[in-house]
Amino acid sequence: MAGAGRDSQRHRHRPLAGDRTEQAGQSREVDFSVAAVLPASGCGERMGSTTPKQFCPLLQRPLISLTLEAFERVHWITEVVVVVSQQNFELMNSVIDQYSHSRATVVVGGLTRHQSIFNGLKALVENRPHELWLEKPEVVIIHDAVRPFVEEDILYRVASAANEHGAAGAIRPLVSTVVATNPEGYLDHSLERSKYRASEMPQAFTFDVIYRAYEQCTDYDLEHGTECLHLALQYCGISAKLIDGPPDLWKVTYKRDLYAAESIIKESLSKSVCIITGMQEEQIQLGILLQEDLQLVMKQVDLLTWSLSKESGCVQAITSKQHYNFIYINVNSFKMHQEIVQLMEAVENVKLSALYPVVVTVVHLNNMDAASFSVRMDDFTNIKQLAKEASRKNILIYSLLINSTKSTDKIHESVKQGASIIESLIKQRSPALIGQLLVV
Amino acid sequence: MAGAGRDSQRHRHRPLAGDRTEQAGQSREVDFSVAAVLPASGCGERMGSTTPKQFCPLLQRPLISLTLEAFERVHWITEVVVVVSQQNFELMNSVIDQYSHSRATVVVGGLTRHQSIFNGLKALVENRPHELWLEKPEVVIIHDAVRPFVEEDILYRVASAANEHGAAGAIRPLVSTVVATNPEGYLDHSLERSKYRASEMPQAFTFDVIYRAYEQCTDYDLEHGTECLHLALQYCGISAKLIDGPPDLWKVTYKRDLYAAESIIKESLSKSVCIITGMQEEQIQLGILLQEDLQLVMKQVDLLTWSLSKESGCVQAITSKQHYNFIYINVNSFKMHQEIVQLMEAVENVKLSALYPVVVTVVHLNNMDAASFSVRMDDFTNIKQLAKEASRKNILIYSLLINSTKSTDKIHESVKQGASIIESLIKQRSPALIGQLLVV
Repeated sequence: MAGAGRDSQRHRHRPLAGDRTEQAGQSREVDFSVAAVLPASGCGERMGSTTPKQFCPLLQRPLISLTLEAFERVHWITEVVVVVSQQNFELMNSVIDQYSHSRATVVVGGLTRHQSIFNGLKALVENRPHELWLEKPEVVIIHDAVRPFVEEDILYRVASAANEHGAAGAIRPLVSTVVATNPEGYLDHSLERSKYRASEMPQAFTFDVIYRAYEQCTDYDLEHGTECLHLALQYCGISAKLIDGPPDLWKVTYKRDLYAAESIIKESLSKSVCIITGMQEEQIQLGILLQEDLQLVMKQVDLLTWSLSKESGCVQAITSKQHYNFIYINVNSFKMHQEIVQLMEAVENVKLSALYPVVVTVVHLNNMDAASFSVRMDDFTNIKQLAKEASRKNILIYSLLINSTKSTDKIHESVKQGASIIESLIKQRSPALIGQLLVV
Repeated sequence: MAGAGRDSQRHRHRPLAGDRTEQAGQSREVDFSVAAVLPASGCGERMGSTTPKQFCPLLQRPLISLTLEAFERVHWITEVVVVVSQQNFELMNSVIDQYSHSRATVVVGGLTRHQSIFNGLKALVENRPHELWLEKPEVVIIHDAVRPFVEEDILYRVASAANEHGAAGAIRPLVSTVVATNPEGYLDHSLERSKYRASEMPQAFTFDVIYRAYEQCTDYDLEHGTECLHLALQYCGISAKLIDGPPDLWKVTYKRDLYAAESIIKESLSKSVCIITGMQEEQIQLGILLQEDLQLVMKQVDLLTWSLSKESGCVQAITSKQHYNFIYINVNSFKMHQEIVQLMEAVENVKLSALYPVVVTVVHLNNMDAASFSVRMDDFTNIKQLAKEASRKNILIYSLLINSTKSTDKIHESVKQGASIIESLIKQRSPALIGQLLVV
């Protein structure tokens, strides 16, 4: 077995703050051993792209890395075998290294989906040290590499049902009526929609059932079939338990699905923000106003007052919150404080930005009279320089200038506009706009 | 029949510049009369939203208006009957007025999809002046309001096949295996994927076939069925011709489909741009450089040199090009020239911005020494004021400052960065960022 990633540096794969995992409740426990096989050797012809869809970038990160992350969030899945074509073997190993997928192993697949899955299963038992043979998993989950939004809840329900019944699979209601055509291309009959379901992924089997099914099935099955549940029924007499799955299980098939997936990730990343102020009264007041406005559009808005030189624990407090968005509040200066640099280092240290682009918006409060205030080219240049360096670490820095006045009404209105600009920057995560100074 | 929109002011429904309509070739001719029925009385419960999905906004415009636009681009479809629930009747009429859907008529639907379609068909013949009875359409296309990306090519193929065979419908390959479940929730059998297809929309029928089918079908059919092809087969003995459709026919069902649809529209709107310069040599040179860079990422980049006071035909030239994006090049001044205001008026006059947000980026070239240059708050304020006014007309104004130097290399690099910022602004069409001055 060609393996990679087993020994690579681990880091915690944390769920996106505020995403659906939380809503689904606490992490589950299982009393049987579980591994997973992800067939990923398809060529993605339906995408109209030369890059196979499992390697298409979403916010610069290959789709399959997101799917692996979804599995690594589930502590009771001990190993994930990714099956790729020979030509993508090196690429897959580099993805595993770059994103530290410590539970993933790569093997080369066959020409068809069934052959690839069978190769993945073999990798779980063959060419292993003898002691690992004994540890062959009791249940194997099979999932598509191109269904990145799979949650622990459905993985748990499918694995448990497989442990009980031998085989199980997620299903969804049919979106379209299914029709049978006659050889001349005319309607033969249409199926009654309520009696049928779309068979989706994940599916799960006891290892022995699915392995035996593959050992016994014909070459014709291996070459032309696609449905593992069918093999379990035909060769092992196991009728799979069918489990209603959520709509997020959908398969990224067309280009529009990549658009949808990117929007879903951006939405997840935009659910929380951490506002950091220094100890000055004005910073804190502005922070409170911004927090109020952002809470209207985000699920979680933390406010931290940070005197870096005095409290070293603050960095830890910031990065333990699992935010992908930060706002630092500055008063009467365009100088980038040491705090920004330290914030960047903290984000980098916990490898937050290794997974997704992290947005840092530096808010400058200007108390001076608007008429006598101007922004010099040097200020633009300094902000740009810092942003350029940060972008190499996947940290997107933007600046926002809020002009304060004596009028309370007006500052409220300005902060509201500022919040809406910050929301837009966070949602779009545009690399082209880094280092820009936006003004309200 | 409750009608609306028939007499509302017409304006041309033009295809988005560079979209797929062009690729599909020339407009077709048909020698039979064609009307369409769009059932749109669903409640959109799968969307997880209280707004029915056909009324969900995409770039501020209700989805159903996009579908109507797709039909109005096809000159041989003479009438489109939209069937909505009683509670959305007024809303639908206001959409028709706002977007000038001159060929659309609204009727109230029944409780089920079949009842609604039947109501739509009746509206094509009942309560009409006697002379219009004679004009009942020979072929009726039935399409879902929530499939906005339908093209003339598939409408033509389905309508022509219906004219020849009595009934026709678009089909797509199945994405998932279809399984039959037994009453206990276990797999009964799986269907061989290659023998079945997903029945999609549009479908078309000769008027007499579909009308007779609805007159004869049972109450059970009307209440529980959804498939018109099935009724034509069962009650008229007409076996529909099945036509392979493109993937764009997909149905906006879940929230992710709205994300995908919005991205597709934004992509279509971002395929072309019109750069306008004044007569100064520096403006023209910068225009040429920008054109070169933008041509790498866009399908069509026009460059116009515009001396407004002298050439009144220029406005016409600009707006006849069907761009949704404009760049105006300015030198050594932050003043908004009369040209910008005239451009805005021209865009408004041809109702471009009535359909989609139009992006205008004003590029300022600064020739002064960077060290001695600064941007005053007044400049920011003036730009913001104009942008705020324009946004009420659905025109999004952004500003970009390019600092020029004597070095040719450096100006090339700056223009390249500027092009990438413009591309990002055009793709994102963010209302929150209007009036901002971006700097390279």
